Amino acid sequence: LPEPIRRVAILSTGEELVRGAIADTNAPYMAGLLRRLGANVVEVRQVGDGREAIAQAAAELAARCDLLLVTGGIGPTADDRTREAIADAAAVGVREEPAALAEVEAYFQRVGRTPSASNRQQARLPAGATVVRNPVGSAPGFSLTIGGALVVVLPGVPGEMRAMVAASVLPLVRARNLELGGETRLLQVVGLPESVVGERIDAWMRRREPPLVSVTVAAGCVTICAADTADAAGRSRLDECVAGMRTALGDHLFAEGDVTLAAHVVERLRALGRSVALAESCTGGLVAAALTDVPGSSDVFLESSVVYANEAKLRTLAVPEALLREHGAVSEAVARAMAEGVRRASGATFGVSTTGIAGPGGGTPEKPVGLVHFAVAGPGGVTHLGKRFPGDRAMVRSFAVTTALDLLRRALGCGPPPAPR
Amino acid sequence: LPEPIRRVAILSTGEELVRGAIADTNAPYMAGLLRRLGANVVEVRQVGDGREAIAQAAAELAARCDLLLVTGGIGPTADDRTREAIADAAAVGVREEPAALAEVEAYFQRVGRTPSASNRQQARLPAGATVVRNPVGSAPGFSLTIGGALVVVLPGVPGEMRAMVAASVLPLVRARNLELGGETRLLQVVGLPESVVGERIDAWMRRREPPLVSVTVAAGCVTICAADTADAAGRSRLDECVAGMRTALGDHLFAEGDVTLAAHVVERLRALGRSVALAESCTGGLVAAALTDVPGSSDVFLESSVVYANEAKLRTLAVPEALLREHGAVSEAVARAMAEGVRRASGATFGVSTTGIAGPGGGTPEKPVGLVHFAVAGPGGVTHLGKRFPGDRAMVRSFAVTTALDLLRRALGCGPPPAPR
Repeated sequence: LPEPIRRVAILSTGEELVRGAIADTNAPYMAGLLRRLGANVVEVRQVGDGREAIAQAAAELAARCDLLLVTGGIGPTADDRTREAIADAAAVGVREEPAALAEVEAYFQRVGRTPSASNRQQARLPAGATVVRNPVGSAPGFSLTIGGALVVVLPGVPGEMRAMVAASVLPLVRARNLELGGETRLLQVVGLPESVVGERIDAWMRRREPPLVSVTVAAGCVTICAADTADAAGRSRLDECVAGMRTALGDHLFAEGDVTLAAHVVERLRALGRSVALAESCTGGLVAAALTDVPGSSDVFLESSVVYANEAKLRTLAVPEALLREHGAVSEAVARAMAEGVRRASGATFGVSTTGIAGPGGGTPEKPVGLVHFAVAGPGGVTHLGKRFPGDRAMVRSFAVTTALDLLRRALGCGPPPAPR
Repeated sequence: LPEPIRRVAILSTGEELVRGAIADTNAPYMAGLLRRLGANVVEVRQVGDGREAIAQAAAELAARCDLLLVTGGIGPTADDRTREAIADAAAVGVREEPAALAEVEAYFQRVGRTPSASNRQQARLPAGATVVRNPVGSAPGFSLTIGGALVVVLPGVPGEMRAMVAASVLPLVRARNLELGGETRLLQVVGLPESVVGERIDAWMRRREPPLVSVTVAAGCVTICAADTADAAGRSRLDECVAGMRTALGDHLFAEGDVTLAAHVVERLRALGRSVALAESCTGGLVAAALTDVPGSSDVFLESSVVYANEAKLRTLAVPEALLREHGAVSEAVARAMAEGVRRASGATFGVSTTGIAGPGGGTPEKPVGLVHFAVAGPGGVTHLGKRFPGDRAMVRSFAVTTALDLLRRALGCGPPPAPR
C-alpha cells in the first residue's frame, strides 16, 4: 500500500499572484475539497514564475508534506516554467511525452482549432511523470513523486484546474489511502459582530482539548468551525459542543455545514414554495449575482432591477416622484417603495430593496458614506432596516449584500436551521 | 538613514485560508500596492491560526526579506493568536499597551457601543511594538523589527486592512527609504486566447535581457507585464517594446496600465457622453456588479434588468412571447429583443443583453451548457454574438461578463487605447 496522505501543501505559481494583480482562488478551492476529505492543509504559498523560485518552493514543501498540489506555469508561453522547475526539484530532465502530446492534439480536434507550435511545448513533462488529463483546456497536467511526496501539477486557469481536480486528482488522492484527519462541524452565523460571537461561545473557544473551536469572519457572516476526532468519542463531544453553541447563538445561526447565506436563502425559498425579486441600487447587481451563483436558483429568483438612475426607479419600480423629491433616493421611504414596486411588478412573493451610498463620493453629513436602507415587502407587509457600514466601497457593498439576504431570511421566518450535511 | 526595502514578503494567517473557506484577497491587494511603489514581492504564504505555525513562518520570512506584512489573528476571540506568535518570533513577551488601549476605547466611543471584556485583549502587543491606527474597526495593528526586517501586523478584515495600509503602512514604508525596483508597463488584452497572445509577442517574451515580458490570464482577459529598470535606458527599451506589442495586438489591446475592462468601458462611455442599460439572464447581475464596482459608474450606467423568469423577459423588456415560444429564451432572436427592449425602456444609448446556459443543468444537444447569446443595441443598430464557453458554472458566467463588456467596447468604437497611467 502507498503511504497515507496526512499533510497537504499547495503551491500557486505566477507573477500575477505576487504582483497582486489577482487573488489566488485555486488554493482555497483545492484546500476546501481536500479538507472535506479529511486532509490537513498545513501551508499555502504563492511565488512568481521564476524557475528557481518555483523549484526551491516545491522542494521545500515536498519535504514537509505527503501531497503537494502545484498550479500555474504550464501554459504555452515562454514564461511558463513550471515543467522545468518541477523537473529541477525532482532532479530529472524534461522531455516530450507521447501521451501528453496526444492529449494536446485531442483538445484541438475537440475545439476545431489548429494547435500552434507553442502548444507543442505543453506536451513536455519531467521524466517519469504521468499525464493528468485536462478535459477543458489545452494544457495537460502531470504527477510525479519527489522524496516521499506525491506532487500533482495543474494549470492555473481556475476552470481547468477545477475540472481536473474533480476528474483526476481526487481519484489519485483516494488511491493513496487518504487518512481521515478528524471530523469538522461548521456553524454559519449572521448579524453579530465577531467579538460578540466569540463571547457567546467563549467557554468552547478557550478549551485546550478537542473539540477545538475557531471562528472566521467574511462580509458580515461568521463561520464557527468545531473539530474533533472522527471516532465515537469525538462525535459525541462534537454533538454536545454544537448543541450548546446552537443555544448561545439563537436565530443568528442560519445554517450548519458548508453552506453560504445565499444558498441557504435559495433553499428556504424553494422549501417554502416562495419566490423573490430584487430592486438594487447601491449593491449594483451583487445580491442578484449572489443568488444566481447558486445552481437551480432560477426556481425561486424571478428578477432584479438594478436601478442606478432615479428615472429608472420611477419608471421600473413605480416609485412616486414626490417620495424621491421629498426624502431623496437613499431613504426609508424610497427603500419601502422600491421593495413594494418590484414585488408588485414581478408577482414574486417577496420584494427586496437596497439603496445607499457606497462611496467614495456622494456622502453628506445627514447621509454619510456607508448608509444603506433596506426593505423587504412580503405577504405580511413591509420590513425596513437602516444601517451604516464602515469601510470602503467594496466593504459597504459586501456588508449590504449580506444584510439584504439576512433581512429576507428573517422575513421567511428563520425556523430551525436545516440538518447538517 | 534606515535600510532601504528591497524584498517584501506577505504572511496571511487564519484557518479559513488553509481550510479553503475563502480566498486570500489581502495579500494581492498589498502586493499590488507595494509593487506600484517599486518593491519586489518575493513570496506570499498562508498558514492556519496555530501560534507555532505563525511564529515559525514569520521567523522564516523575516529572515528572507526587508519588509514582512502579516494579516489576521488580532481580533478579540480566543483563536486570535498572532500577537503572541509574533512576540515568539521576536523573542519578546506580550503586554497591554496604553496607546493600543486608547485606540480600542476610541473606536467604541466612535461607534457608540460598549467594549466587551474580550476587546481589551486587542490592546495587548509584543513588547517594543508600535501601534498602527485602525481608522475603521476595533483591532489596532502594530509594527516592530525582527532581525533586519520591518514587520507590520494588520487585521485580516479586508476593509480594515485596506484603510490601515493607506493611512499608516505606506508612510511607514516610505520612511524606510523604499528603493525603486524598476518600472513596469501593463497591457490589457481581451478576445484572444493566451497562446495566441504569446505567439504574437513571442519575440519579446523569449528575451533573457530586460524588458522582461510575462502574461497572465483571468476570465478571458490577458494582462501583459513588461518590466525594466527605472532609468532612461530602461524606459527607452520599454517604450520600444510596448510600441511593438501594440502593433501586434491590434484592437484586442483595450487599455494600458492597471485598469480593468469594466473600468475602461465606464471611462469610454463617460468620455463619449454615452450611457448603458443591461438585460442580464445567465450572468445574473454580474455585468451590473462589474460596472458598478467602478466608482462614479452612476454617470453612465442607468440600470440592469436581471431577468431569470421568462415572464420577466416578456413584461420588463417587452420581448414578444412568440419569439420565446419559437426560438426559446437562449437564442439570437431573444438576445436581440432583450437588448432592444432594455434600450427602449431605459432611454440609454446602448442596451446590452446576455442569455445562456451556465449549467450545471439545463443543457440540451442543440443548446449545450456553456452556450451564451449576446446582443448590443445602439444608435447604429444591433450586433449579435453567440459563443460556447468551456468550464463550470462560475467559468461560463465569468467569460460571459468579459464577452458582454468587450462587445459593448467594440460598439463604442474601440479607438486608440487611452494613454498609459
